[in-house]
Amino acid sequence: MIHSAKTMRCLSADNVAALVAQHGLAACIAGIADNIAADFKRWQEFEKSSRLATHSPLGVIELMPIADQQYYAFKYVNGHPKNEQLGLPTIMAFGALCEMDTGAPLLVCDLTLITALRTAATSALVAKWVARPNSKSMALIGNGAQSEFQAVGFHHLLEVTEFHLFDVDYKATDKLLRNLAKLGLKGRRFTSVAEAVQGVDIITTITADKTNATILLPDDIKPGMHINGVGGDCPGKTELHADILDMGPVFVEYAPQSRIEGEVQQKPQDFPVIELWELLQGRHPGRTNPDNVTIFDSVGFALEDFSALRYVHDLANRLGVAGSPALIPSLPDPKNLFSFMPPAL
Amino acid sequence: MIHSAKTMRCLSADNVAALVAQHGLAACIAGIADNIAADFKRWQEFEKSSRLATHSPLGVIELMPIADQQYYAFKYVNGHPKNEQLGLPTIMAFGALCEMDTGAPLLVCDLTLITALRTAATSALVAKWVARPNSKSMALIGNGAQSEFQAVGFHHLLEVTEFHLFDVDYKATDKLLRNLAKLGLKGRRFTSVAEAVQGVDIITTITADKTNATILLPDDIKPGMHINGVGGDCPGKTELHADILDMGPVFVEYAPQSRIEGEVQQKPQDFPVIELWELLQGRHPGRTNPDNVTIFDSVGFALEDFSALRYVHDLANRLGVAGSPALIPSLPDPKNLFSFMPPAL
Repeated sequence: MIHSAKTMRCLSADNVAALVAQHGLAACIAGIADNIAADFKRWQEFEKSSRLATHSPLGVIELMPIADQQYYAFKYVNGHPKNEQLGLPTIMAFGALCEMDTGAPLLVCDLTLITALRTAATSALVAKWVARPNSKSMALIGNGAQSEFQAVGFHHLLEVTEFHLFDVDYKATDKLLRNLAKLGLKGRRFTSVAEAVQGVDIITTITADKTNATILLPDDIKPGMHINGVGGDCPGKTELHADILDMGPVFVEYAPQSRIEGEVQQKPQDFPVIELWELLQGRHPGRTNPDNVTIFDSVGFALEDFSALRYVHDLANRLGVAGSPALIPSLPDPKNLFSFMPPAL
Repeated sequence: MIHSAKTMRCLSADNVAALVAQHGLAACIAGIADNIAADFKRWQEFEKSSRLATHSPLGVIELMPIADQQYYAFKYVNGHPKNEQLGLPTIMAFGALCEMDTGAPLLVCDLTLITALRTAATSALVAKWVARPNSKSMALIGNGAQSEFQAVGFHHLLEVTEFHLFDVDYKATDKLLRNLAKLGLKGRRFTSVAEAVQGVDIITTITADKTNATILLPDDIKPGMHINGVGGDCPGKTELHADILDMGPVFVEYAPQSRIEGEVQQKPQDFPVIELWELLQGRHPGRTNPDNVTIFDSVGFALEDFSALRYVHDLANRLGVAGSPALIPSLPDPKNLFSFMPPAL
């Protein structure tokens, strides 16, 4: 199946936001979660590599490529915690979905918003598989840019209804409370992590500090809890006390990358982890007892962006969103690239 | 120096072509060559890596990242020789120039046209350093998409005035002859490689076949010639008979990459090569005698795209080209990504 380069779409941040709003945020997170589940189930079909990271004193810039036989996808993404002080997002991202047979880009688009959606989709998907059935409450530790999307994901995919909020930045929690109210969701502010996590079914940690922090201590964890650790995602950046990782099975996306970037960077190279595909292909039983503690050490893997880009591409086709002028020239005679120069030359 | 994300530009293929036409093709190639020379002279300041290639039965897709302390750049580029049959360019490319301190993309643009310009700029720059002084004639073996740009580069940077053309595809030479006439340049068709190269100062091979070909034989090479080997640029894709590489010093962009992708893939790992920075920093004398044969084994390195992206960025700023809507959202409160969703939600 060969597409013409003329079907290429370039979607701006505004285009993507309009697309998500038109289809519905919850529906998009659910749809992306379905794609992610389907893609992890065929894990063996992908050519995978750890992301290519370029570190600087203030942050990191990464390229995340992945391919199956039909599609190639990559994401550009940064992580600069001090950006906030400059009025810039901590995380900005864009990427492309391309055709393996021709190399033609089919979709180039903003992934800043989509990164938040696919992270929430992955978090909720994993929790649906391993959190205690009928989980109703979740602590959200870190109330920054991604927190609303986590709440929407867990509400719509798991029917979580009660959100316990904590952030060292009081205004971040203000903002999250306002946005949850707009969504018809119930949030409650707590003044410490210990208080916020008390009695909840699920704890999501999603903070941005580029340090080895211990946001969660072993004493915070009670039998049956599921921990969704999202913010520990690059070397030297962790959120969980290392002993928490001994309290139950630790699920990761792609072990070679997680051992460098995830919470498990605190553990020896042979520390046992379960890759998501093992869970989704039924090779690991997941939770076997309501009292199990389960841990998802999420760092974000290229396959999730692949799944999300396919989703955005399908949605843009279905809803007929045209986007901006093509990034790649369309040539009547491909050997005559020179003809693409305006005659003014 | 911190830029605002609001200065981000997204330039379509049409935008880039208009920009090049407005400033002049020859001036752009010369300007890019100046940037490339300046950047190779400060080679040690760059964080370099070989490109990340994903191969498939029909072609290759590559990501080429590079960074100094101020900027990060990458290019997406494919190589699919059979695309022509589908009416698609063999090579399509786009990329970005980003700020190291914030990760903010400053420029995202088509690089299909710019790849041809920067390849011609690099070819002409190297020839200016090592080809015989007062070279006036060049054989162009391969008259495809990039051939006009090579001709313009060598005409304007070296004052080459006579172009000997050969291609197995008769129509490709027709097209090149037409385009050269538009540019006021003199081309002459030959019916074999051996005839085309006879008596010239410089031979440029720039063919697209994804095979180990021997476009040039040792007998074709006469004392004093400079060989600009451009088309041998991925594993299993070469153009020169291996013995030609023993006829004079072989210049490469970045040895670890060239040993995998270039003509020197035909030679042992310890085959002597000279990296361009050694030439441009004066650590290698280049040509020492009018009878030397010199060989540039060009594969295309990320630094050339970095130099070209900086050039396009400066030019777009100077000429005030706005481009398409921003690929990355601009947020009043960076922690409130959710606010970027339209209120319709």
